[in-house]
Amino acid sequence: MSRRHEILRRAAEIFARKGVAHTSIENIAEAVGLKREAIYYYFKSLEDILLEIILPQSTTLHRNLRNVMATHHSAKDKLHEAIRVQLDSYNPGYLEMSILMRENHYFKDKKKLDELHKLWQDMTELWVDLVCEGQASKEFNPDLDPRIVALGVLGMCNWVSRWFNPGQSISIPDVIDTFFTMSSQGLLYVDKESL
Amino acid sequence: MSRRHEILRRAAEIFARKGVAHTSIENIAEAVGLKREAIYYYFKSLEDILLEIILPQSTTLHRNLRNVMATHHSAKDKLHEAIRVQLDSYNPGYLEMSILMRENHYFKDKKKLDELHKLWQDMTELWVDLVCEGQASKEFNPDLDPRIVALGVLGMCNWVSRWFNPGQSISIPDVIDTFFTMSSQGLLYVDKESL
Repeated sequence: MSRRHEILRRAAEIFARKGVAHTSIENIAEAVGLKREAIYYYFKSLEDILLEIILPQSTTLHRNLRNVMATHHSAKDKLHEAIRVQLDSYNPGYLEMSILMRENHYFKDKKKLDELHKLWQDMTELWVDLVCEGQASKEFNPDLDPRIVALGVLGMCNWVSRWFNPGQSISIPDVIDTFFTMSSQGLLYVDKESL
Repeated sequence: MSRRHEILRRAAEIFARKGVAHTSIENIAEAVGLKREAIYYYFKSLEDILLEIILPQSTTLHRNLRNVMATHHSAKDKLHEAIRVQLDSYNPGYLEMSILMRENHYFKDKKKLDELHKLWQDMTELWVDLVCEGQASKEFNPDLDPRIVALGVLGMCNWVSRWFNPGQSISIPDVIDTFFTMSSQGLLYVDKESL
């Protein structure tokens, strides 16, 4: 692991544990066993470190969602895949994702912040598209507002960063399948063999 | 509005706009038109102000959820009511709720923090109970893990604090009904007239 990579890894751990607003460059330096000045050799600021953690994750998530939407699968299958894409990021990268989802970010680097916000907006729109597609193909209930539905499913997925603990008994594949069944079939117990 | 109440109201606005970690006693004093010292006449610390905003909201939410669970309605109706309880708090109190849901809190007052965490844990357990009840009465799909389901619906509701904007076209009653339909019937378009 390169020194640079090690700084990012340790920073991600500290961010996730203490919150970004309560983390200082000193905290990160201490965890890596470097002096504060040495960190500045690699990164300009704390925000710079945070962005280098968040941007690649968001770019990957966005690309994976776009790939799901580009297939010719049914909207139902795309829903399953999109939930998987959204939640698989918690598995190896749950620390980074939990930071991404939990904090409000105040960056001085407005250009990179705009880039991040644009990625997040685009991802929401991909989710809205997915719902609209399912309504157009008569797979999904056409009476529901596609934006509220999209934000609802995204909320289920993103809230996982608040409660998921990789050491506990609930596994990510279980969460994916449960959320898919919930959002596609609902909780009500009826004979849905035909679906 | 008493001076004390005014401080809480202004603080809530600033917390919601800037995030708690980026708010100082000075910011609040300035918004109320007082000196920093005058704020300390009413509150011991910033955390103290935050807790006085969050605790009453959480207590009300918890009591309302308990009341829903204490009725003899069907699990399906309880689900609708519980979603309503969870989301109605955004209407007059959306600012406070958005703070509550968005920030990680680091309080020095461990006793009050424990009280808050206990309330939140109890609320999650009430949601798990609701799902278990619906499974026991054969209203809800018995194959789903009740905890994952509960955290999923809670996630949908809590994530609203991230995107809801009271000035925009989406209304809270629409969100409540859409989330209820989504979580009870699912998105898939089938004849569910019988439900």
